[in-house]
Amino acid sequence: MIFPELYTPTLLLEKEKLMANIARMQAHADRLGVQLRPHLKTLKAAKAAEALIASGARGITVSTLKEAGYFLEHGFKDITYAVGMAPAKLPEVASLMARGADLKIMTDNLEVARVIATEASQSGIGYKLLIEVDCGDNRGGLQPESEELLHIAEQIANSAAHFLGILTHAGHSYGVNNTSAIEKIAEQEREAVVRAATRVRAAGYVVDTVSLGSTPTGLYAKDLSGITELRAGVYTVFDMDQQSRGVCQTEEIALSVLSTVIGHNKAAGKILLDAGGLALSKDRSADKFRPEVGYGQICSPDGTIIPELYVTSVSQEHGHVRVRDVNDYKLFPIGSRLRILPIHACMTAAAYDHFNIVENGVISGKWDRVNGW
Amino acid sequence: MIFPELYTPTLLLEKEKLMANIARMQAHADRLGVQLRPHLKTLKAAKAAEALIASGARGITVSTLKEAGYFLEHGFKDITYAVGMAPAKLPEVASLMARGADLKIMTDNLEVARVIATEASQSGIGYKLLIEVDCGDNRGGLQPESEELLHIAEQIANSAAHFLGILTHAGHSYGVNNTSAIEKIAEQEREAVVRAATRVRAAGYVVDTVSLGSTPTGLYAKDLSGITELRAGVYTVFDMDQQSRGVCQTEEIALSVLSTVIGHNKAAGKILLDAGGLALSKDRSADKFRPEVGYGQICSPDGTIIPELYVTSVSQEHGHVRVRDVNDYKLFPIGSRLRILPIHACMTAAAYDHFNIVENGVISGKWDRVNGW
Repeated sequence: MIFPELYTPTLLLEKEKLMANIARMQAHADRLGVQLRPHLKTLKAAKAAEALIASGARGITVSTLKEAGYFLEHGFKDITYAVGMAPAKLPEVASLMARGADLKIMTDNLEVARVIATEASQSGIGYKLLIEVDCGDNRGGLQPESEELLHIAEQIANSAAHFLGILTHAGHSYGVNNTSAIEKIAEQEREAVVRAATRVRAAGYVVDTVSLGSTPTGLYAKDLSGITELRAGVYTVFDMDQQSRGVCQTEEIALSVLSTVIGHNKAAGKILLDAGGLALSKDRSADKFRPEVGYGQICSPDGTIIPELYVTSVSQEHGHVRVRDVNDYKLFPIGSRLRILPIHACMTAAAYDHFNIVENGVISGKWDRVNGW
Repeated sequence: MIFPELYTPTLLLEKEKLMANIARMQAHADRLGVQLRPHLKTLKAAKAAEALIASGARGITVSTLKEAGYFLEHGFKDITYAVGMAPAKLPEVASLMARGADLKIMTDNLEVARVIATEASQSGIGYKLLIEVDCGDNRGGLQPESEELLHIAEQIANSAAHFLGILTHAGHSYGVNNTSAIEKIAEQEREAVVRAATRVRAAGYVVDTVSLGSTPTGLYAKDLSGITELRAGVYTVFDMDQQSRGVCQTEEIALSVLSTVIGHNKAAGKILLDAGGLALSKDRSADKFRPEVGYGQICSPDGTIIPELYVTSVSQEHGHVRVRDVNDYKLFPIGSRLRILPIHACMTAAAYDHFNIVENGVISGKWDRVNGW
């Protein structure tokens, strides 16, 4: 049996693929002349941050302040918290800064900027602020032409806080599945954040950081003129969601769930795995372009892709696999193991507290990760 | 601010509602003359098991062996592991039994039964086995009329292992949304497992346990003749999935996620919360009957339901709420808090390591829970 030391379900991370994915994005960022600030929301692992920085990344991005604290404890100080700031979380930001974090926060709201400016002036804490703009994703962010953009820059620049620059995220690049469409969104993303930066500069403020990113636009942008940094995360491991959008090949996916066959329901035409909704997540992001993939692509335990075999449905602790024909019961007897390539790596990894690192086909170690808030 | 001591997103468990839900199922089981063996896959908390046992439950059900170990450490010995047994997990079962667990395992496969019988006879460990039958859910389980059912009973009965009985789960009761349809499935569930038990008894084997259950069928079964025990879990807290199926009222849902408003994207017509796909899960089980509910029903921080306000989409750390009209921006300013009633309690709770217990409107304590495998 492969990986006999592992109890299933558990998470595998293939080091060779991870390092190749890291090198690919770093080379692209270098070629386009921007710094890479990888998003650790996917891996949430200090060892992953180490590998990224060693490969040329400058600083990291996080999605929770708990991640910021974890990475700080592991020696990573240059951190951008790229989720809209809630005033109630400022004490935690202050605490992280007091412990040595060079922490950047962001907002798209004038009222929040006023609170930050006031708190900074009262406490003397030099909070570092980015303003978020919306380049078409319709999540967070001001419109690049909004007046509020200038008012926020003014509020911060006239306080003890520091105004650093502008940030955007082209989450809508996940809505297309061909590189020419991604290239167009990448240019839309670039244009929006540069336009916002230009307006703020014209109003008399220094804009040091002009930041953008998503895995699809990060990989397929042709020009990043006016941009200082690129943020992206899931490219480190990829997943079936990215594969379904043409962003990566299935063979490049570095993350998988190792599972055991626990049942054959021949009357229902299915094999049951011990990896269900909790072990895989209920993310169905690949549905738009590859609905057949369901909750994951199945591979043999050594990672060889098994054509047309997918986790077709899940319950809490069961993955249901519709068999291709009755021969599958012989190929995958009870007790045998299968790997599953996840739909959405960030969601799947969050169910585990560590990665089992696969190097040269064997387990070479464990990388711990942080979860929760 | 309500619950000022809490950092968001975090999980709230309302004790009064929990206890009322526990009492409702216990009273129903008592009325029907069956023992209740609650499924702890939802709450995974020792304090919850304590409350259930104190209310009359006999033993517990778990979905992972890690849960079994956790509950054993907290003094709960009578445990059924209701997921198909993988032979590779037998050493962990043996270890739990050696530490004092009265652990019941199950299979629906003759090969697995042979392995268990052989291991039992070689080691002298008296593994206790239930056979799973499929009553229409099409997940695990043999058909009640299958020959394999008798062969497994024979294998086990002729070994050092113990054959305990038959078990089924009417997961397909989640596919309907009215009590008369649920009642029919409850009778189908009862009939299937009783039929299997009758066949095994007729073949000369003692069947002590005849076990069934799901929250819908558990609550709406009218007759459980021939049944010895009922298993169900999510009834303890309910969720919007159960509400969408008419199994509970929204007001009976005891679990919620406390979140903070972190953004207003007025151009996109939405409020952003700091509870996204990880904090809520990406479960969309309520879609079949109430697609408008999306990723959760929104309530004010004190738990009052806000009509027609839902988490309409999620990204990893953002919950997106489509506003009803522009007045919502005034009602829910940035920094204010909202509660979210989850779609699927078992999936949502798994992102957290504890519950904040709400009693009389204030936080009275924390209950830890176990996650992972």
